[in-house]
Amino acid sequence: MLRLYDFLESGNGYKVRLLLHQLQRPFERIQLDIYNGASRTPEFLSKNPNGRIPALELEDGSYLWESNAIIWYLADGTPFLPSKPLDRARALQWMCFEQYSHEPNIATVRSWVMHPKDTEDRRVMMPIKREFGYAALKVMEGHLKDRDFFVGGAYSIADIALYAYTHVAHEGGFDLKSYKAVNAWLKRVAGQPRHIPITKG
Amino acid sequence: MLRLYDFLESGNGYKVRLLLHQLQRPFERIQLDIYNGASRTPEFLSKNPNGRIPALELEDGSYLWESNAIIWYLADGTPFLPSKPLDRARALQWMCFEQYSHEPNIATVRSWVMHPKDTEDRRVMMPIKREFGYAALKVMEGHLKDRDFFVGGAYSIADIALYAYTHVAHEGGFDLKSYKAVNAWLKRVAGQPRHIPITKG
Repeated sequence: MLRLYDFLESGNGYKVRLLLHQLQRPFERIQLDIYNGASRTPEFLSKNPNGRIPALELEDGSYLWESNAIIWYLADGTPFLPSKPLDRARALQWMCFEQYSHEPNIATVRSWVMHPKDTEDRRVMMPIKREFGYAALKVMEGHLKDRDFFVGGAYSIADIALYAYTHVAHEGGFDLKSYKAVNAWLKRVAGQPRHIPITKG
Repeated sequence: MLRLYDFLESGNGYKVRLLLHQLQRPFERIQLDIYNGASRTPEFLSKNPNGRIPALELEDGSYLWESNAIIWYLADGTPFLPSKPLDRARALQWMCFEQYSHEPNIATVRSWVMHPKDTEDRRVMMPIKREFGYAALKVMEGHLKDRDFFVGGAYSIADIALYAYTHVAHEGGFDLKSYKAVNAWLKRVAGQPRHIPITKG
């Protein structure tokens, strides 16, 4: 059976959990206390040398890590990943956007708010990351203004990837009120069959 | 013809240029002066709302952006992207690693060294990004210790993605001397047919 190394609060872990539920694929979930070093032990580094969750243990005993690579692998050949090459590339484009321009700002600010620590780098970077987070939301708002989903007119892993930290952005103090298209899209994603909340393991 | 919006010094642009040369696909290259706002004009934002190069204009007049999504699209169906689903996912895993754990540290430090500006966030973040950059190199070194290439025993876009900023890391002050497996791999990548340097447009 698939085994997911995870942390419930993580949007990156949630991407995989949500897709596995929607694919109706059974899996075992291993919760790692990442704020107390559980993803940096020699044992876990032998699974993911980059020391991060999620990591997925496959049926053959090998590991796949990086949330967006995991959901790409699981979704390939299903309706959750478009089949046309250009639509696939556009899904990947939005997933790269998520990891580079969205997650390091919106997810990191949320984690700093949820697990406060008074350090110089946080003091300096918090307002910068907040500004970049809003810039990412603005890009999403522009794209969703005349679209129901990110790619190909249908719900896909591009939506899952971007939903993961957008729907909890308020936990990092982001105010999404004026992002009307984003809000309508959040509701559409949450209304998909077999949707689960981030709090469900 | 394909049209690439690019900046010569950019490793992200170089990924696309290098692959296009190796695929022997003709393209027109548009150099944008990104340090003087050329990627943030209304005209360019209509091509890539995220305001970054590279962006590729396709034959149908539409645009694809995010370097790793572009090279995935161009490589699909060629020997530069593995064909087995799990190898493809592993290529994507390393490309996600590149965009999240490698590029924001190694490429950003290089850009700060090449285009100096005395700001508080750079003063605070430079040593942190340098440390994270070395951590990414350590992960690469461990993986390459008993492998010639990142995925499936053959040169692929995973190598291209990671080569782009690793081979110029010294321009950001990174000392790669002790990373023997990385150095051997850099030579192997540079020795591939139709390789071009980052300085070639």
